[in-house]
Order: sequence, then C-alpha cells, then structure tokens
Amino acid sequence: MDIPSHFLERAVGQFSQLPGIGHKTAMRLVLHLLKWERKDVDAFADSLHELAENVRYCKVCHNVCDGEICPICASTKRDHATICVVESIQDVMAIEATQQYHGVYHVLGGIISPMDGIGPQDLEIESLVKRVGEGDVNEIILALSPTMEGDTTSFYIFRKIALYTDVTITTLARGVAQNEQLHYTDELTLGRSIVERRAFKSNP
Amino acid sequence: MDIPSHFLERAVGQFSQLPGIGHKTAMRLVLHLLKWERKDVDAFADSLHELAENVRYCKVCHNVCDGEICPICASTKRDHATICVVESIQDVMAIEATQQYHGVYHVLGGIISPMDGIGPQDLEIESLVKRVGEGDVNEIILALSPTMEGDTTSFYIFRKIALYTDVTITTLARGVAQNEQLHYTDELTLGRSIVERRAFKSNP
Repeated sequence: MDIPSHFLERAVGQFSQLPGIGHKTAMRLVLHLLKWERKDVDAFADSLHELAENVRYCKVCHNVCDGEICPICASTKRDHATICVVESIQDVMAIEATQQYHGVYHVLGGIISPMDGIGPQDLEIESLVKRVGEGDVNEIILALSPTMEGDTTSFYIFRKIALYTDVTITTLARGVAQNEQLHYTDELTLGRSIVERRAFKSNP
Repeated sequence: MDIPSHFLERAVGQFSQLPGIGHKTAMRLVLHLLKWERKDVDAFADSLHELAENVRYCKVCHNVCDGEICPICASTKRDHATICVVESIQDVMAIEATQQYHGVYHVLGGIISPMDGIGPQDLEIESLVKRVGEGDVNEIILALSPTMEGDTTSFYIFRKIALYTDVTITTLARGVAQNEQLHYTDELTLGRSIVERRAFKSNP
C-alpha cells in the first residue's frame, strides 16, 4: 500500500511493531490519532517517553514500580512470609484483582521454554532462592500457568527450594472453572477434578 | 485492576483511548513496550510528535500528505479530469493498491450519517462542487460504501452536481465478489447481479 505521507508511514511502521497489530490495524489507529487534537497526540507521545524514562522494577519482587521498592513489598499490611511466584506483571495484577491474596510476590519475568530459548538463568529464579535462603519465609505459592512450560518451571523451582524444609511449597488449585458448563470442560481438567474431589461444603 | 506504577497507568490509559483497544490489550502493548530498548520507545513517541506536527491535508483532494498538495494531485501522469469521490484516506489507499485507477481523488472525510450527527456540512462536499464548477472535469466516480449511508451520500452529491450536464457521474460496479462462493453471497447482491447481468467475455 502506498502511503502518501512520510510521517504517517513512520507512525504506522512503529505501531505495527506492537504484538497483534498488523499493518491495517496500525493504519486505522494512526488515522484515528490524526483526528485527535495536537495536544492530545503530544500527551500520548509524552506518556511513552516518561514510561521509558521512569518505570523501574522492584528490587525485591521484580514487579513494575516507580521507585526502588514496589508498593506491595513496601506495605506493612502484607504477609511478607508468603511469596507467590508468578510469570509476569500481568499475573500480579490479575491475582491482586481477586482481593484474595495478602502475601507478597516474586515475578520470574517468564517461564522456562526451551522452544523459545528461555532457560532458568534468564529468569529471576536465583533471586527467589536467595530470598528463601535469607529466612523468614513460611510458604511459597507456585502460581504459574497450568501448561507444560509452567509445570516444568514449577518443578525446577520446587527442586531448588525443597532443601529448605521449613518452607511449605504450594500451588494453585486446579479443577473446573467457576460458571463453566461441565460438558464444555476439557477431559484432562474434568478427569483431574474427579480424582482430586473434595469434601462438599454448603458454603464454598 | 490496580497498576503499581503511575507511568505505566498513564501509558495504558492513553493506549486504551484508541479504537478497538481495551484496557487488557493496552496493558499488553505497554508491557511489550517495556521490553524494548529505551531509544526504540523514544523513536515510537517521536514518530507520534512528528505525525501531529507535520501531517497536512491536500488543499485539492483532502488526502493526507506532507506538503500543500498530495503526490497524486501534483502528478502530471494522472488524469485530472476524472475525480473519484471516497469517504476516507484508507479508501484512497485501497483503490491505489488495485493499480486500476489513474484519475485523481476527492476525500469527503466521512459520509452522511444522521445517527452519528454527521450532515453534508461536516463533509468536503462544497469543495467538491467547487472543483466541478471550475470546469475541466469529465467524470465523477462516486466510490462510497454500498451501505444506506453511502447511498444517501452518493445521492446527495449526485443532486448537487447533476446540474453540470457535461460531467458524467458513475459509481462502482456492484455484484458477486471475485472468488466468492455463490451460495454464500447475500440475497440482495445476488439478486442485483442477476438483474444487472452483462455480456459474457471470454477474457473478463
């Protein structure tokens, strides 16, 4: 497609580098931006400059933050003896949104995936082992995705921290999802949820 | 969802203002940007600043361009007596991509849509009538979408320029699409393509 403006072409090229944004979508987004007022487009651009300049990662848990330590690690209201190990920053936000967890986190920054060339040394596993080794940790929750890669990573971490026998290692419950139609549930999940059935509570 | 960084939150807010980008997608895009090198994010932001600062609209056809006149209107190789009337800049690029059209364009900047509060005065219709009135125009091709709004706009423009009796007014051929399965074609299109059938050519 021949683009009649160099500036338009450049902005479209930038947008199409983002994941899931093809050339046509990029064009649609940029033409939408052209309808904005000049100051709004500048504010958009400035927010990216400031993002690149100011965003930091928490020294303790590697979550994204504005300073040295993220608000969760800095909070005295959280249980610092319970560490929830997650793959990414999105996972921290997803678990926070449930309002069911009051411990702290450890963001690995990925999972072990030989297909993508990601090994244990590329992830924040050593720093997790160090946190556990420094004591004061009661429980490690391995909250990784229930996939081949997630399970591999969980097992690797389990092997690394199992020698600290005073630390409980747990993982997320697996089973049928809330509000899911039973006959749409995949066989593996349904089979596992029968094998690992639990006592019925009238108030679950 | 609680975002642990003010800068992250601001960038996500900016992205979610774009059409078709919800909060989750915006978050995914911004977290992807965080993996980029600083200079690449700055280049992205700069491309938006420059877009807002430098993009202009052609004084003749209202297509996007870098100067006063777009490359198509400035070209001596194009047939300036044939004007193709389109809704948007995307439509110009789509028709250019076919390499079947050698005239010039006129971008309306929208179509008449009372539901969205867009009337003829919001579009570049007066400037089109002015272009026709200045003479040297042989043909106006009304290349608007075959929708209720597109047909309304075409009819409105037709009424406005029909008084210039030396100008031929045409519209795009409508019928079954190339490579489309006939039984999937909608009734209206198929019916119309039978009524408006044409002489068979062995080399279409």
